[in-house]
Amino acid sequence: MDGAARIDEVVTALLAQFAERCSLNRDVRDRHGRGESWHPSQAPDAVVFPSSTEDVSDIVRLCAANGVAVIPFGAGTSLEGQVQAVDGGVCIDLSQMSGIVAVHSEDLDCTIQPGVTREQLNTHLRDTGLFFPIDPGAECTIGGMVATRASGTNAVRYGTMRENVLGLTVVMADGSVIKAGGRARKSAAGYDLTRLFVGSEGTLGIVTEITLRLHGIPEATAAAVAAFPTIDAAVDTVIQVIQTGVPIARIELMDDVSIGAVNTYAGLAMDEVPTLFLEFQGSSASVQEQAETVELLAKENGCAGFVWSDRAEDRAQLWQARHNAYYAGLALKPNAIGLVTDVCVPISRLAECIRETKTDLASCPMPAPLLGHVGDGNFHVCFIMDPDSPEQIAEAERLHHRMVGRALAMGGTCTGEHGIGLGKRDFLVDEAGDGVAVMARIKHALDPNYILNPGKMFNARDRSA
Amino acid sequence: MDGAARIDEVVTALLAQFAERCSLNRDVRDRHGRGESWHPSQAPDAVVFPSSTEDVSDIVRLCAANGVAVIPFGAGTSLEGQVQAVDGGVCIDLSQMSGIVAVHSEDLDCTIQPGVTREQLNTHLRDTGLFFPIDPGAECTIGGMVATRASGTNAVRYGTMRENVLGLTVVMADGSVIKAGGRARKSAAGYDLTRLFVGSEGTLGIVTEITLRLHGIPEATAAAVAAFPTIDAAVDTVIQVIQTGVPIARIELMDDVSIGAVNTYAGLAMDEVPTLFLEFQGSSASVQEQAETVELLAKENGCAGFVWSDRAEDRAQLWQARHNAYYAGLALKPNAIGLVTDVCVPISRLAECIRETKTDLASCPMPAPLLGHVGDGNFHVCFIMDPDSPEQIAEAERLHHRMVGRALAMGGTCTGEHGIGLGKRDFLVDEAGDGVAVMARIKHALDPNYILNPGKMFNARDRSA
Repeated sequence: MDGAARIDEVVTALLAQFAERCSLNRDVRDRHGRGESWHPSQAPDAVVFPSSTEDVSDIVRLCAANGVAVIPFGAGTSLEGQVQAVDGGVCIDLSQMSGIVAVHSEDLDCTIQPGVTREQLNTHLRDTGLFFPIDPGAECTIGGMVATRASGTNAVRYGTMRENVLGLTVVMADGSVIKAGGRARKSAAGYDLTRLFVGSEGTLGIVTEITLRLHGIPEATAAAVAAFPTIDAAVDTVIQVIQTGVPIARIELMDDVSIGAVNTYAGLAMDEVPTLFLEFQGSSASVQEQAETVELLAKENGCAGFVWSDRAEDRAQLWQARHNAYYAGLALKPNAIGLVTDVCVPISRLAECIRETKTDLASCPMPAPLLGHVGDGNFHVCFIMDPDSPEQIAEAERLHHRMVGRALAMGGTCTGEHGIGLGKRDFLVDEAGDGVAVMARIKHALDPNYILNPGKMFNARDRSA
Repeated sequence: MDGAARIDEVVTALLAQFAERCSLNRDVRDRHGRGESWHPSQAPDAVVFPSSTEDVSDIVRLCAANGVAVIPFGAGTSLEGQVQAVDGGVCIDLSQMSGIVAVHSEDLDCTIQPGVTREQLNTHLRDTGLFFPIDPGAECTIGGMVATRASGTNAVRYGTMRENVLGLTVVMADGSVIKAGGRARKSAAGYDLTRLFVGSEGTLGIVTEITLRLHGIPEATAAAVAAFPTIDAAVDTVIQVIQTGVPIARIELMDDVSIGAVNTYAGLAMDEVPTLFLEFQGSSASVQEQAETVELLAKENGCAGFVWSDRAEDRAQLWQARHNAYYAGLALKPNAIGLVTDVCVPISRLAECIRETKTDLASCPMPAPLLGHVGDGNFHVCFIMDPDSPEQIAEAERLHHRMVGRALAMGGTCTGEHGIGLGKRDFLVDEAGDGVAVMARIKHALDPNYILNPGKMFNARDRSA
């Protein structure tokens, strides 16, 4: 980069090339300066809507020549400040790159553009007998899921984006285009660039095409809801289910506070006790066998109400509370903002980790529902903060810090699925130690002028590595 | 690196620190200069046997200070010239670092040193009800399997090393030590360094500790052998098994030439026709169901002999031919050397890819048994070459080149599991294109003086990136 960033030249050139597909509108820019988290908006100088890899390459090349930052944007559902334009620059909104490039149903894979949402993909796949299982809850784009290494409720059975991305097309920091991975089910050909880009949050390149693994829709699916007298009883059931090797498709926990929130939000009348939401998939016989095994384990742990169903409409009703959980939490206080934690620990430490967290929360001055993908050892506390209360924000951050310290001491991670963004940069240092310097060297090698989503993942001091 | 490599200083210092754990013996050095492949030995100047991460760090620090190459070595079973000391230097033989650091059976993970072999690990796990499934056939070390992103017969069900390594301790090119990943089942914390090191063939760092996923030993296991009139019929069966979603544990193909080789080698009397070797795992009911489904598909494809058994001793006998395949191939000619290909294609192209390959082989002037992990679309041809015949070597290379070109045109890869080493560097360029320059930039960022396993993965010209 020779001298200061030249945003004006870039904007002029973008308007010339992209016309109405480049917006300088204040509202559009503000909306693109934040995700769904509590982190304040930091608007980019312009938002461009490319429709092809070539468009993205042109934009990055232009920005690189002028030392201007580029920030990729999907659906704006990230939770750790992944899209904030901390130095201004150009937001590349990939939502119009929403084409299904190819579906190879006979190989259980497909290639798509990054703006496709997971619901659009599954709608498209409807008649193939296949589906894409990763489900982080939000109506996010697959590109955003690649960027943050997303997972969600189905990961306990199907893995995360790490396991389900086969290949990528990526625009690099100089505008050049590479392909990583491919369609082979496995490969030992060179460094695993695919996995390097998955979870890199737009800091190493901009993903413009994605090849995904697909899975056969199971012959049978059943859902269950199990209410427990204590959170320990619920978590012990989870641990036993996982250790017994039941190939469960989803196993989700909501605590008493979470259930209370959805009762209010969605007009439900569930018992406000720790509750597991389960889903079983497989052959009819296997689903029956799984449900029986889990019911037995649940009852041994004191579960009083175990309700299950294999009818689609009943399943949706059973799971309704879980689907509403995040927004129900936010609705606990008017105009509240949520700080959502995301620790993940080895399953044997989960009960202890949740118990100590709940003890911390007992004296918390704001609502703090706890829920999570407990089959992976992953859970969230959502601190429902008054945005005008620095005390509440400080207290939420203090409790978050304690949660992360506890999880790391147990061999866990500060983020199971939300990523680092702006919000967890210090935690990344706590967790990865000198590994952060290695990450920073890779960043420097692939983006020497720090134009790709600057400020994310690394603190400024890490850049000197 | 300031000036020329100073191997003499390094050897003197190693002898002082490691005494009899540093060998200059010609035989020892020669043995450490090659794997099991046809690539000629290139001996290191010294072989050191460290017993700890600290030892490895000391060795690397010493070599870095003197500009001397370091080459990690496990069991010497690699197939693409991964351990050849092309510039001399110090071989770090990790076989004495064979400790089991921890087994967390309740979390289905363990941490081991890199010199542990997969058979040692499974012997150690015997009483836990768990096992480590990845089985490349050879009696290799787990460290070597990490380095080459190994897979093998079980990968169709359990994935490869990519999916089964949770975390690593790595000595970097300057001797510093980092930890990548951890014990959490999933994480979105920063770049996926774990996956970057898996498959990097010792060119980015030296792995000194490994945390692995383990799996529950299935309740029931059954094996089957199915003989087919044509190779198409066998491969079509494989494709249908995979597409039907049978959760098969192993599905291996041996062609008529391979079966003939094992008949001779092991005194068997199998029909010399294309044959599938299968293994089913799960509950008793599921194993029965899987076997019935596969038998039906096999018979629809003309299979005349489908033999199956769920008794352990019979299973071993059924699979005996497959276990002997590689060495049986080499034994087809006295003093022969084997060039083993390793393409992998999307499953829908497998029949076509194998058919065209067999057509090529019809006029091949040397034995060329074909076999493979066909459930992943991965297969090998083993060219049994006279080491004194440049014509045979040239013809094997020509046919190999055609196989790789065919696989790449079908969306496949030049190596499913053996890696790049010395043997496939040109193919990596064919396959990854400009991605190789990205790999080279990462290599340069993490090993600026090219002391880590030099000459592997990249051609000299790629280094200038």
